[in-house]
Amino acid sequence: MILVIRPDATLEQIDHVIERVRDLGYTPHVSRGESRTIIGVIGDEAKPGTENFSAIPGVEQVLRIMKPFKLASREFHKSDSSVYVGKVKIGGGSLAMIAGPCAIEGYEVLDTIAKYVKAGGANILRGGAFKPRTSPYAFQGMGEDGLKILRDVGDKYDMPVVTEVMDPRQVDLVCRYADMLQIGARNMQNFDLLKECGKAMKPVLLKRGMSATVKDLLMSAEYVLSEGNKDVVLCERGVRSFEDSTRNMLDMSAVPNVKGQSHLPIIVDPSHATGRPDLIPSMCRASVAAGSDGIHVEVHNCPEKALSDGPQALLPHQFLDLMGDLRRLAVALGREFWAPPEK
Amino acid sequence: MILVIRPDATLEQIDHVIERVRDLGYTPHVSRGESRTIIGVIGDEAKPGTENFSAIPGVEQVLRIMKPFKLASREFHKSDSSVYVGKVKIGGGSLAMIAGPCAIEGYEVLDTIAKYVKAGGANILRGGAFKPRTSPYAFQGMGEDGLKILRDVGDKYDMPVVTEVMDPRQVDLVCRYADMLQIGARNMQNFDLLKECGKAMKPVLLKRGMSATVKDLLMSAEYVLSEGNKDVVLCERGVRSFEDSTRNMLDMSAVPNVKGQSHLPIIVDPSHATGRPDLIPSMCRASVAAGSDGIHVEVHNCPEKALSDGPQALLPHQFLDLMGDLRRLAVALGREFWAPPEK
Amino acid sequence: MILVIRPDATLEQIDHVIERVRDLGYTPHVSRGESRTIIGVIGDEAKPGTENFSAIPGVEQVLRIMKPFKLASREFHKSDSSVYVGKVKIGGGSLAMIAGPCAIEGYEVLDTIAKYVKAGGANILRGGAFKPRTSPYAFQGMGEDGLKILRDVGDKYDMPVVTEVMDPRQVDLVCRYADMLQIGARNMQNFDLLKECGKAMKPVLLKRGMSATVKDLLMSAEYVLSEGNKDVVLCERGVRSFEDSTRNMLDMSAVPNVKGQSHLPIIVDPSHATGRPDLIPSMCRASVAAGSDGIHVEVHNCPEKALSDGPQALLPHQFLDLMGDLRRLAVALGREFWAPPEK
Amino acid sequence: MILVIRPDATLEQIDHVIERVRDLGYTPHVSRGESRTIIGVIGDEAKPGTENFSAIPGVEQVLRIMKPFKLASREFHKSDSSVYVGKVKIGGGSLAMIAGPCAIEGYEVLDTIAKYVKAGGANILRGGAFKPRTSPYAFQGMGEDGLKILRDVGDKYDMPVVTEVMDPRQVDLVCRYADMLQIGARNMQNFDLLKECGKAMKPVLLKRGMSATVKDLLMSAEYVLSEGNKDVVLCERGVRSFEDSTRNMLDMSAVPNVKGQSHLPIIVDPSHATGRPDLIPSMCRASVAAGSDGIHVEVHNCPEKALSDGPQALLPHQFLDLMGDLRRLAVALGREFWAPPEK
Repeated sequence: MILVIRPDATLEQIDHVIERVRDLGYTPHVSRGESRTIIGVIGDEAKPGTENFSAIPGVEQVLRIMKPFKLASREFHKSDSSVYVGKVKIGGGSLAMIAGPCAIEGYEVLDTIAKYVKAGGANILRGGAFKPRTSPYAFQGMGEDGLKILRDVGDKYDMPVVTEVMDPRQVDLVCRYADMLQIGARNMQNFDLLKECGKAMKPVLLKRGMSATVKDLLMSAEYVLSEGNKDVVLCERGVRSFEDSTRNMLDMSAVPNVKGQSHLPIIVDPSHATGRPDLIPSMCRASVAAGSDGIHVEVHNCPEKALSDGPQALLPHQFLDLMGDLRRLAVALGREFWAPPEK
Repeated sequence: MILVIRPDATLEQIDHVIERVRDLGYTPHVSRGESRTIIGVIGDEAKPGTENFSAIPGVEQVLRIMKPFKLASREFHKSDSSVYVGKVKIGGGSLAMIAGPCAIEGYEVLDTIAKYVKAGGANILRGGAFKPRTSPYAFQGMGEDGLKILRDVGDKYDMPVVTEVMDPRQVDLVCRYADMLQIGARNMQNFDLLKECGKAMKPVLLKRGMSATVKDLLMSAEYVLSEGNKDVVLCERGVRSFEDSTRNMLDMSAVPNVKGQSHLPIIVDPSHATGRPDLIPSMCRASVAAGSDGIHVEVHNCPEKALSDGPQALLPHQFLDLMGDLRRLAVALGREFWAPPEK
Repeated sequence: MILVIRPDATLEQIDHVIERVRDLGYTPHVSRGESRTIIGVIGDEAKPGTENFSAIPGVEQVLRIMKPFKLASREFHKSDSSVYVGKVKIGGGSLAMIAGPCAIEGYEVLDTIAKYVKAGGANILRGGAFKPRTSPYAFQGMGEDGLKILRDVGDKYDMPVVTEVMDPRQVDLVCRYADMLQIGARNMQNFDLLKECGKAMKPVLLKRGMSATVKDLLMSAEYVLSEGNKDVVLCERGVRSFEDSTRNMLDMSAVPNVKGQSHLPIIVDPSHATGRPDLIPSMCRASVAAGSDGIHVEVHNCPEKALSDGPQALLPHQFLDLMGDLRRLAVALGREFWAPPEK
Repeated sequence: MILVIRPDATLEQIDHVIERVRDLGYTPHVSRGESRTIIGVIGDEAKPGTENFSAIPGVEQVLRIMKPFKLASREFHKSDSSVYVGKVKIGGGSLAMIAGPCAIEGYEVLDTIAKYVKAGGANILRGGAFKPRTSPYAFQGMGEDGLKILRDVGDKYDMPVVTEVMDPRQVDLVCRYADMLQIGARNMQNFDLLKECGKAMKPVLLKRGMSATVKDLLMSAEYVLSEGNKDVVLCERGVRSFEDSTRNMLDMSAVPNVKGQSHLPIIVDPSHATGRPDLIPSMCRASVAAGSDGIHVEVHNCPEKALSDGPQALLPHQFLDLMGDLRRLAVALGREFWAPPEK
């Protein structure tokens, strides 16, 4: 860490800054330039208390050198991590295709959709039983009944299942039915939920918040990792922007950006990122080409009657076409979608 | 609601759209223009299912006419609401000054700060016992011990107290000690927490999320209101932007913008919005001039030793000066900070 | 266009709105719903004056149905356009690779870089002679001397050349040397420059502004097209966002988004979008997979001595590796980089 | 400037970095921490070439300490500058009220509006003769005929006049008629226009670009100042954001933020910032309370027939009411709107 001293700071103030640096257990390293004095602060930047250096009178700027996360960082764990969801491997060249409806609406609808996505080559089934809805008057999900349906349909088609958990009180319940816990974008900084999922024995799919930087996303992963759960998969799903013709703005560069800083797998969700079925296939292709470890996409056999987010769902035949394209593309890039061993 | 039909839609598709409109209990009103057919959808727009109109084949755009919130809207409640926190009235010309440290750090520190802010004219004391921190390694708050201190110090200085609640499981506990529940920016769309606070018998201070529109903020208020809790105070605290010299961007126009659409009181928090003590006083003045129902500001007697957010705290003497300015300004604008009746 | 009337509008106001609609040459189509009256405005939305409908007393909202651009729209020109820069075809399955240094710094440097990018398979050479620099104290470009060098080096390697024009007064000069005029992001709404380039007989490379929506970009293209120049290639180069680890945020979905609305070719510039050589190769791959008609990338043989934007340049060997990857990917996707016919 | 070296940099790389620092005329100051080596670069940071430090192999980060502008900085000029537009003083406690229609539409309309705004206490008249319009099909302004009308009406009511200049070729012409040159938001980084206005002998009103940081704005002011023109007034007019209920987001904190870093006067334009007459009066009040040196507001006597931006104009009676409020507020804050000496 480096402290830049104001040009008008008094000697007394500078002495006080140096004293505070020493008090907090760091070694100060003073250097006087033409227009500014700077103080190098040598020691572990992640310790509590360092954020206050900028509150010391005479300090103009605090420049951080180190990343604020550890367990999530590539410096801590050099090689790519991979995460198993049931038998399905995510990361290390093995691609996940997580597909299904936005919400679980009943056995029959989910069964129909699962049959299609399984046929297309999806390897993990998704569906929401607890739904974060902007309006209190919108469908809020089927709850435990939905979880049971998800489990049954997943078992029928031999697919592990992922579903969102919104409330720390739901974690135990969801763990009984699901193979992977999804933390939604709106909860990326719901720290009590992160901690509770960090204690669970299930892999976590952590979605990027709508105004979260890549660093914020990795700090939230750090919350889960620091509770002992090593199985975290990140998900880019678009951020808020001024562009009003898409639901969010898909930050495609987050894929290599995360991979440079972290060993964790990262997948992309073009459904929520764009909100537009006409843009989803090309964004899936781009995600695979960008180096993503998988895709998360919503599929519905009758979007106009879906209970949640119908307008952004792909139709089954669109999903089948897309998977054909993606498999060819993956091969050209030396990777492949995980598939069960043929019998 | 208005459905714009694609220019290349078939007659069969248009008939199907009309049928779906009727199925959902609305009356369709078809009108053919030079280049587009449009269908007016007459009925209550807030009903579930309307979001799916855009998923019907042949529909190009769905234009909404009505606001999606009701209880929070000015159409529902014409006159300004005011909210009582203990004896303190917020709204209807009566200004709140909510002041105190970011986090409760111990009895003595809080006692010192409370003495100063009371002397300056603050009418509600704030302090966090549960802290949402970006890093899992940062100070996470004193928990119930902190709540006890807050209650004691509030009582000593005859000030009602507000503190953040982060987890639905904490609501009962926090209600035992606090006069007002704060829902932080990161939890503005933590819908389970909103519902739990909606069931509590305490007023709620709901902060705007970092990427929330004014409409999103009012929808979150609607969650609290729809559970039966009518005492909601909104808080503008800055949103994420590309400007990197302030912590967030204070959206000052949100004050009159909210007041045009909603009867709920709204206050401004320049501490989190700017993150810079040099900008806080002028932003407080501007907030009062913009028509805000109060101010939320962080004060610390020794920012360089604060356990959370020290760099953005005002010093006690800065707070005293600021309050002098604000009182004069309020008078010039025909309003006043709430103060206990003189004995 | 649809006018939504305020619920408290008087009959007199509504009559006045209807009269104004007729005055401007449109046919009003009134429809009364449960809570709002709406007036359909039938006629050409692009006519001047329609923006003022929202200023008529009693009008609450104006909802536009039509796109505000015509010549750039896919409704006007159904099939994909392609643009020739010298012999090089951009669009219609033919990919451009525009490569070269940020600024022209002298004959030798450009000659060296051009040799490398030609060897890698670049088909258009770029280099700036007039540089838009944030600081007045930074290198501003070599001007006409630079243009001469660009022309000479382009001819030596048989590559057409593109260079930026910043000022309407430079258009004639730049046309004497360059095969394509680049309008930079900062000038995307420099309307006098757009008009001047619209009168020139050279194809135009129009970069998206840092806070421009896709619609804004197409409106700026409309300025060039409406002056008679049909050869416009669009370029996504990232927009401003809160993410501070990349220079800008690459809006990859702009590629299919533009292609849905417009017939014009669109390429991607990952150099300016990310500002980071470690992210450029994967973003180039993603761009090709997303359906882009080409790539614009900066290459320098000695970035640490470059006179402009060195830190974001690829090294020659990185460029060679990248082109190998991109060619394989293009083949897998049924497209190819334009190359001169072998002799 | 400080260079942070990568943890895996070789000694050879570090030596090369040190050599490059010396080559560029700086003194390196090396310091080895626990996890990183850092190199202080002592000397003038604003010199060309320093941006390339981050392109030297082994350099991880470049941290800048100094501001990149000089003439615009408060370090260069400690006390507040004031700027005279004709007789009207802007800055130093003297407030400007710049009012008038968006576009000059003819003598009669401008005469009517000028009479009203003069009566209300406006001290500078505005009106556009060259209009930057998003659409090529919209009214583009009256050109020189408009300038003549503006001059005549300004003289009639004894008000200096300001008008936008969009093209470097127009600067001489506009200087013949106007007392102040406005550079619009879309041209804030039209560097040739900035230079041309820097050579003119007229004060400049420089509007903040829609995606410009405060630093970017001051760098653009530096362009004008560095050509010799010392009379620059800055204008905050809102930036692009995700909030879709206002035209832009008014960054009110830019006022004290600029004042902390620069001696230049800054005013606020709530008309373009919000685009909504219902929000303009409270934002004008807030601007004055925030410490702005003036206000820029659009007024029209018949917004529904205005040729440009009618929907955001205040009506004359709204302007009169607003000025009454603002004068009272200014008095309470110890400032006043400039007014001609009474005879």
